[in-house]
Amino acid sequence: MAKKQTTKNYVAQSHPRFIDKNIQIPYYNHLTADIITDHHIEDPEEVKKLLFAAARKAKNTPIKAIVHKFSPHGITGVILLAESHIAIHSWPELNYVAIDVFTCGKKTQPRKALEYFRKKYKAKIIKIQEIREG
Amino acid sequence: MAKKQTTKNYVAQSHPRFIDKNIQIPYYNHLTADIITDHHIEDPEEVKKLLFAAARKAKNTPIKAIVHKFSPHGITGVILLAESHIAIHSWPELNYVAIDVFTCGKKTQPRKALEYFRKKYKAKIIKIQEIREG
Repeated sequence: MAKKQTTKNYVAQSHPRFIDKNIQIPYYNHLTADIITDHHIEDPEEVKKLLFAAARKAKNTPIKAIVHKFSPHGITGVILLAESHIAIHSWPELNYVAIDVFTCGKKTQPRKALEYFRKKYKAKIIKIQEIREG
Repeated sequence: MAKKQTTKNYVAQSHPRFIDKNIQIPYYNHLTADIITDHHIEDPEEVKKLLFAAARKAKNTPIKAIVHKFSPHGITGVILLAESHIAIHSWPELNYVAIDVFTCGKKTQPRKALEYFRKKYKAKIIKIQEIREG
Protein backbone atom coordinates (compact mmCIF):
# COMPACT_ATOMS: atom_id res chain seq x y z
CA MET A 1 0.00 0.00 0.00
CA ALA A 2 2.85 2.35 0.81
CA LYS A 3 3.49 2.98 -2.85
CA LYS A 4 5.22 6.30 -2.37
CA GLN A 5 7.71 5.18 0.25
CA THR A 6 9.30 8.02 2.13
CA THR A 7 12.98 8.02 2.84
CA LYS A 8 13.56 7.45 6.53
CA ASN A 9 17.30 7.56 6.13
CA TYR A 10 17.21 10.54 3.82
CA VAL A 11 18.84 13.72 5.08
CA ALA A 12 19.14 16.77 2.86
CA GLN A 13 20.93 20.06 3.04
CA SER A 14 20.34 22.89 0.59
CA HIS A 15 22.90 25.57 0.05
CA PRO A 16 21.84 29.16 -0.56
CA ARG A 17 22.01 30.51 -4.08
CA PHE A 18 25.31 32.09 -4.87
CA ILE A 19 25.02 33.76 -8.27
CA ASP A 20 24.16 37.48 -8.40
CA LYS A 21 20.57 38.08 -9.31
CA ASN A 22 21.59 40.34 -12.18
CA ILE A 23 23.49 37.55 -13.91
CA GLN A 24 21.27 35.37 -16.04
CA ILE A 25 22.25 31.72 -16.10
CA PRO A 26 20.16 28.62 -16.81
CA TYR A 27 18.28 27.20 -13.87
CA TYR A 28 20.06 24.13 -12.55
CA ASN A 29 19.81 21.74 -9.69
CA HIS A 30 22.96 19.94 -8.59
CA LEU A 31 22.46 17.13 -6.11
CA THR A 32 25.33 15.21 -4.56
CA ALA A 33 24.49 12.17 -2.49
CA ASP A 34 26.60 10.15 -0.09
CA ILE A 35 25.25 6.63 0.21
CA ILE A 36 26.33 4.18 2.88
CA THR A 37 25.52 0.63 1.87
CA ASP A 38 26.83 -2.91 1.95
CA HIS A 39 24.94 -3.77 -1.23
CA HIS A 40 27.60 -3.57 -3.93
CA ILE A 41 26.82 -3.14 -7.61
CA GLU A 42 30.07 -3.60 -9.45
CA ASP A 43 29.03 -5.00 -12.83
CA PRO A 44 29.62 -2.38 -15.56
CA GLU A 45 26.52 -3.36 -17.55
CA GLU A 46 24.38 -3.16 -14.44
CA VAL A 47 25.77 0.28 -13.55
CA LYS A 48 25.05 1.47 -17.09
CA LYS A 49 21.48 0.23 -16.81
CA LEU A 50 21.09 2.00 -13.46
CA LEU A 51 22.26 5.26 -15.00
CA PHE A 52 19.76 5.03 -17.87
CA ALA A 53 16.94 3.99 -15.57
CA ALA A 54 17.68 6.77 -13.08
CA ALA A 55 17.72 9.31 -15.89
CA ARG A 56 14.28 8.16 -17.03
CA LYS A 57 12.91 8.18 -13.46
CA ALA A 58 13.97 11.82 -13.22
CA LYS A 59 12.35 12.58 -16.60
CA ASN A 60 15.72 13.33 -18.11
CA THR A 61 16.74 12.58 -21.68
CA PRO A 62 19.71 10.17 -21.68
CA ILE A 63 22.31 10.58 -24.43
CA LYS A 64 25.15 8.16 -23.73
CA ALA A 65 27.01 6.59 -20.83
CA ILE A 66 30.51 5.39 -20.02
CA VAL A 67 31.51 3.11 -17.19
CA HIS A 68 34.93 2.07 -15.92
CA LYS A 69 35.63 -0.79 -13.52
CA PHE A 70 38.64 -0.42 -11.28
CA SER A 71 40.79 -3.29 -10.09
CA PRO A 72 40.39 -4.82 -7.57
CA HIS A 73 37.23 -2.89 -6.66
CA GLY A 74 35.28 0.25 -7.32
CA ILE A 75 33.40 1.40 -10.36
CA THR A 76 32.75 4.79 -11.91
CA GLY A 77 30.20 5.76 -14.50
CA VAL A 78 28.62 8.83 -16.02
CA ILE A 79 25.63 9.35 -18.25
CA LEU A 80 25.28 12.47 -20.36
CA LEU A 81 21.79 13.91 -20.44
CA ALA A 82 20.16 16.54 -22.59
CA GLU A 83 19.90 18.26 -19.17
CA SER A 84 23.56 17.66 -18.04
CA HIS A 85 24.71 14.46 -16.28
CA ILE A 86 24.41 11.78 -13.60
CA ALA A 87 27.54 10.15 -12.13
CA ILE A 88 28.20 7.17 -9.87
CA HIS A 89 31.47 6.48 -8.06
CA SER A 90 31.69 3.49 -5.74
CA TRP A 91 34.09 2.33 -3.03
CA PRO A 92 32.73 -1.08 -2.04
CA GLU A 93 35.63 -1.57 0.36
CA LEU A 94 34.26 1.39 2.33
CA ASN A 95 30.57 0.59 1.76
CA TYR A 96 30.30 3.94 0.07
CA VAL A 97 28.78 5.25 -3.17
CA ALA A 98 28.83 8.86 -4.35
CA ILE A 99 26.07 9.98 -6.70
CA ASP A 100 25.94 13.27 -8.53
CA VAL A 101 22.80 14.43 -10.38
CA PHE A 102 23.23 17.66 -12.28
CA THR A 103 20.15 18.74 -14.21
CA CYS A 104 19.22 21.95 -15.93
CA GLY A 105 15.74 23.26 -16.46
CA LYS A 106 12.64 22.86 -14.36
CA LYS A 107 11.04 20.02 -16.29
CA THR A 108 12.96 17.23 -14.60
CA GLN A 109 12.73 15.67 -11.16
CA PRO A 110 16.30 14.97 -10.09
CA ARG A 111 15.33 13.75 -6.62
CA LYS A 112 13.50 10.86 -8.24
CA ALA A 113 16.84 9.68 -9.61
CA LEU A 114 18.26 9.69 -6.08
CA GLU A 115 15.22 7.90 -4.73
CA TYR A 116 15.78 5.23 -7.37
CA PHE A 117 19.46 4.86 -6.42
CA ARG A 118 18.56 4.76 -2.73
CA LYS A 119 16.39 1.72 -3.36
CA LYS A 120 18.70 -0.03 -5.81
CA TYR A 121 21.69 0.35 -3.50
CA LYS A 122 19.60 -0.56 -0.44
CA ALA A 123 21.06 2.53 1.21
CA LYS A 124 21.50 2.41 4.97
CA ILE A 125 22.13 6.13 5.00
CA ILE A 126 21.75 8.67 2.23
CA LYS A 127 22.85 12.26 2.68
CA ILE A 128 22.11 14.77 -0.01
CA GLN A 129 23.46 18.23 -0.65
CA GLU A 130 21.83 20.51 -3.13
CA ILE A 131 23.09 23.51 -5.03
CA ARG A 132 20.54 25.41 -7.09
CA GLU A 133 21.23 28.39 -9.26
CA GLY A 134 19.69 30.32 -12.12
CA MET B 1 56.22 38.31 -15.29
CA ALA B 2 52.93 37.59 -13.58
CA LYS B 3 53.36 33.90 -14.19
CA LYS B 4 51.01 32.78 -11.45
CA GLN B 5 48.11 35.02 -12.36
CA THR B 6 45.63 35.42 -9.57
CA THR B 7 41.95 35.26 -10.28
CA LYS B 8 40.44 38.68 -9.92
CA ASN B 9 37.06 37.48 -11.02
CA TYR B 10 37.19 34.37 -8.89
CA VAL B 11 34.66 34.12 -6.09
CA ALA B 12 34.41 30.98 -3.99
CA GLN B 13 32.00 29.67 -1.42
CA SER B 14 32.69 26.60 0.68
CA HIS B 15 29.89 24.67 2.28
CA PRO B 16 30.30 23.11 5.71
CA ARG B 17 30.88 19.40 5.94
CA PHE B 18 27.69 17.47 6.23
CA ILE B 19 28.57 13.85 6.92
CA ASP B 20 28.66 12.65 10.52
CA LYS B 21 32.17 12.34 11.88
CA ASN B 22 31.56 8.74 12.88
CA ILE B 23 30.86 7.70 9.29
CA GLN B 24 34.00 6.94 7.35
CA ILE B 25 33.85 7.90 3.71
CA PRO B 26 36.65 8.72 1.27
CA TYR B 27 37.86 12.32 1.31
CA TYR B 28 36.45 14.19 -1.67
CA ASN B 29 36.35 17.67 -3.03
CA HIS B 30 33.47 18.63 -5.28
CA LEU B 31 33.81 21.97 -7.04
CA THR B 32 31.06 23.42 -9.20
CA ALA B 33 31.89 26.53 -11.19
CA ASP B 34 29.65 28.98 -13.01
CA ILE B 35 31.55 30.71 -15.77
CA ILE B 36 30.28 33.77 -17.61
CA THR B 37 32.07 34.21 -20.91
CA ASP B 38 31.55 35.20 -24.52
CA HIS B 39 34.39 32.95 -25.63
CA HIS B 40 32.65 29.86 -26.94
CA ILE B 41 34.34 26.49 -27.33
CA GLU B 42 31.91 24.27 -29.18
CA ASP B 43 34.12 21.86 -31.09
CA PRO B 44 33.83 18.35 -29.59
CA GLU B 45 37.50 17.49 -30.15
CA GLU B 46 38.58 20.73 -28.51
CA VAL B 47 36.31 20.10 -25.51
CA LYS B 48 37.74 16.59 -25.17
CA LYS B 49 41.28 18.01 -25.21
CA LEU B 50 40.31 20.57 -22.56
CA LEU B 51 38.99 17.81 -20.31
CA PHE B 52 42.18 15.77 -20.60
CA ALA B 53 44.39 18.82 -20.12
CA ALA B 54 42.42 20.02 -17.10
CA ALA B 55 42.66 16.58 -15.54
CA ARG B 56 46.43 16.63 -15.92
CA LYS B 57 46.70 20.18 -14.55
CA ALA B 58 44.89 18.96 -11.44
CA LYS B 59 47.21 15.94 -11.19
CA ASN B 60 44.33 13.59 -11.88
CA THR B 61 44.55 10.36 -13.83
CA PRO B 62 42.27 10.55 -16.90
CA ILE B 63 40.53 7.37 -18.02
CA LYS B 64 38.18 8.24 -20.85
CA ALA B 65 35.93 11.03 -22.04
CA ILE B 66 32.68 11.47 -23.93
CA VAL B 67 31.38 14.63 -25.53
CA HIS B 68 28.04 15.43 -27.12
CA LYS B 69 27.30 18.46 -29.30
CA PHE B 70 23.76 19.76 -29.20
CA SER B 71 21.97 21.36 -32.12
CA PRO B 72 21.96 24.28 -32.71
CA HIS B 73 24.28 25.12 -29.83
CA GLY B 74 25.62 23.86 -26.55
CA ILE B 75 28.03 21.07 -25.78
CA THR B 76 28.37 18.66 -22.90
CA GLY B 77 31.31 16.47 -21.98
CA VAL B 78 32.57 14.36 -19.12
CA ILE B 79 35.92 12.76 -18.41
CA LEU B 80 36.20 9.84 -16.02
CA LEU B 81 39.20 10.00 -13.72
CA ALA B 82 40.79 7.49 -11.41
CA GLU B 83 39.70 10.11 -8.83
CA SER B 84 36.08 10.61 -10.11
CA HIS B 85 35.15 13.06 -12.91
CA ILE B 86 35.23 16.47 -14.56
CA ALA B 87 32.22 17.72 -16.55
CA ILE B 88 31.56 20.66 -18.85
CA HIS B 89 28.12 21.89 -19.93
CA SER B 90 27.87 24.98 -22.11
CA TRP B 91 25.09 27.36 -23.13
CA PRO B 92 26.80 29.69 -25.60
CA GLU B 93 23.50 31.48 -26.25
CA LEU B 94 23.59 32.56 -22.59
CA ASN B 95 27.37 33.08 -22.44
CA TYR B 96 27.42 30.45 -19.72
CA VAL B 97 29.50 27.35 -18.97
CA ALA B 98 29.04 25.03 -15.98
CA ILE B 99 32.08 23.07 -14.81
CA ASP B 100 32.04 20.30 -12.26
CA VAL B 101 35.26 18.87 -10.79
CA PHE B 102 34.74 15.95 -8.46
CA THR B 103 37.96 14.45 -7.11
CA CYS B 104 38.66 11.98 -4.36
CA GLY B 105 41.79 11.77 -2.31
CA LYS B 106 44.18 14.47 -1.22
CA LYS B 107 46.81 13.98 -3.90
CA THR B 108 45.11 16.08 -6.55
CA GLN B 109 44.67 19.82 -6.97
CA PRO B 110 41.15 20.30 -8.36
CA ARG B 111 41.33 24.09 -8.25
CA LYS B 112 44.09 23.96 -10.83
CA ALA B 113 41.60 22.42 -13.24
CA LEU B 114 39.27 25.36 -12.68
CA GLU B 115 42.09 27.82 -13.08
CA TYR B 116 42.87 26.19 -16.42
CA PHE B 117 39.24 26.42 -17.54
CA ARG B 118 39.05 30.02 -16.38
CA LYS B 119 41.88 30.93 -18.73
CA LYS B 120 40.78 28.78 -21.65
CA TYR B 121 37.24 30.15 -21.53
CA LYS B 122 38.50 33.72 -20.93
CA ALA B 123 36.04 33.88 -18.07
CA LYS B 124 34.57 37.29 -17.28
CA ILE B 125 33.19 35.92 -14.03
CA ILE B 126 33.82 32.60 -12.34
CA LYS B 127 31.93 31.59 -9.24
CA ILE B 128 32.87 28.42 -7.44
CA GLN B 129 31.08 26.40 -4.84
CA GLU B 130 32.85 23.68 -2.95
CA ILE B 131 31.58 20.67 -1.06
CA ARG B 132 34.17 18.67 0.84
CA GLU B 133 33.54 15.53 2.81
CA GLY B 134 35.39 12.56 4.23
